[in-house]
Amino acid sequence: MAHFMDGKAVAAEIRAEIRKDIEEFVEKGNRKPHLTAIIVGDDVASQTYVQMKMNAAKDVGITSETKRLPAEATEKELLDLIESLNNDKSVDGILVQLPVPDHMNERKICNAVICEKDVDGFNVFNVGRMCLDMNSMIPATPLGVIELIKRAGIETFGKNAVVVGRSKNVSMPIAMLMHADGRNETNAMDATVTICLRFTPPKELAKYCSMADIIITATGVPRLITKEMVKPGACVIDVGITHITDPNTGNTKLVGDVDFDEVRKVAGHITPVPGGVGPMTVAMLMHNTFTAAKNLAAASIKS
Amino acid sequence: MAHFMDGKAVAAEIRAEIRKDIEEFVEKGNRKPHLTAIIVGDDVASQTYVQMKMNAAKDVGITSETKRLPAEATEKELLDLIESLNNDKSVDGILVQLPVPDHMNERKICNAVICEKDVDGFNVFNVGRMCLDMNSMIPATPLGVIELIKRAGIETFGKNAVVVGRSKNVSMPIAMLMHADGRNETNAMDATVTICLRFTPPKELAKYCSMADIIITATGVPRLITKEMVKPGACVIDVGITHITDPNTGNTKLVGDVDFDEVRKVAGHITPVPGGVGPMTVAMLMHNTFTAAKNLAAASIKS
Repeated sequence: MAHFMDGKAVAAEIRAEIRKDIEEFVEKGNRKPHLTAIIVGDDVASQTYVQMKMNAAKDVGITSETKRLPAEATEKELLDLIESLNNDKSVDGILVQLPVPDHMNERKICNAVICEKDVDGFNVFNVGRMCLDMNSMIPATPLGVIELIKRAGIETFGKNAVVVGRSKNVSMPIAMLMHADGRNETNAMDATVTICLRFTPPKELAKYCSMADIIITATGVPRLITKEMVKPGACVIDVGITHITDPNTGNTKLVGDVDFDEVRKVAGHITPVPGGVGPMTVAMLMHNTFTAAKNLAAASIKS
Repeated sequence: MAHFMDGKAVAAEIRAEIRKDIEEFVEKGNRKPHLTAIIVGDDVASQTYVQMKMNAAKDVGITSETKRLPAEATEKELLDLIESLNNDKSVDGILVQLPVPDHMNERKICNAVICEKDVDGFNVFNVGRMCLDMNSMIPATPLGVIELIKRAGIETFGKNAVVVGRSKNVSMPIAMLMHADGRNETNAMDATVTICLRFTPPKELAKYCSMADIIITATGVPRLITKEMVKPGACVIDVGITHITDPNTGNTKLVGDVDFDEVRKVAGHITPVPGGVGPMTVAMLMHNTFTAAKNLAAASIKS
């Protein structure tokens, strides 16, 4: 039976570390790190996600604020707000909760957040730096996946990994961090990596997965990864989140991409959904915010 | 016996197309595109490469100039030169021949070339855009590999590809362009992609290669890819270039990563070394320079 990768527990551990580090940071005379979130419109899921992040911030000693714009706000209004936060010395991290309304250019919005405060790592300049193995803000979910692997002591060097999915915010950074050179600034994982996608034939997906020491799936397709596809002892990390409704009870629940109850019988390590990668994402966002605060504090001393 | 992918002939075809397009561009009242190369120091290989590029430029109707700095030039002198070329309206493309001397920060140099004139595609901002499937300057060698695959009519959609190597200027962009979404701005190839690296065990490399419909190798390890590793009918693209000396004659010759004489017996398509990817690189650099010239001409009309 697979070892259970308890993202909730690991995230709590990381948050405790950050809390302690922030206490020391503040004792040295720095103000508390500050995270500002922006929500445009009334999307319920966005409200929930931001609330979770703000609760986590409070928990670790990061002050925070949520700015709200109406759904009909113009792109320029949002850009102006970002610009004012970029210039605001009391703000360390800026997070624009996605998606933004359709009349806005999401890419332009992401690039408007200056790199130093871009705790989501979505600015194209941060993406470029990450892809070149340079220090940058790395998106919180990929960073959480990597941290979970590291803290579980999973060996990656020269191992076979499969990343299922090719999204730019999650799968692509994971593939990059899994295969790149561990001697460079991103401390990447030196694994052989296969990127599978929606057009990978099921038979081929099964073949690649069955060769893998580590499977990381981020597709939103429930039960995509079945027991037959998993090599005994492999590490299976499930980034997928799908809301499904139980036809009998009418209740909804969250499921991942992995057929958890079956796959756990063969895997060596497995993450649950919920309670696996999700809490790690929130913890790593706190990590990024604290990093931003430290960098900005160091830069203000220099200047 | 494999179909021979004649990079020299395809490159000549592309150059003829560019030449014709440039003629039309000039007939419309634009000046000829202009490419400026910078060489720092006396590296013989660098001189040869730049000379080849300048000859190709002349051939397609691109005017060019080579600026030379002594090996002992300071980083600031090089940055100042780049800055002056960035601001020079008579220059469309800027190419800093790598490597630069050790006392210079190569990354800083690459980022100094403004994106619009960055015909090598090495500016971090262009890298980020490419990795996000956005229009950008794509480095000439990866672009040449993709173009060779396209013009040979090799199907990639949902196929298995292996990229051997993980260099940031060649393999990484190839892996990105091979797996990304063909509906986005980079017109990528929608293939399942495995990235193999120096730490991939030989047995695993062989396994991945034997599953591949397309193998692209860029390692500089002669005879890394042998006949036994290649699926009958696969397309094998060899980006490797190694100078070896014949122990009998003392003559040096260029070889790739592929055991060409044997692999050609099983492959469906194969590139030779030399005469495969090399000429494509030069042709795509001309393509990028002309693209830069068109973009800059369009921007100057707008402004």
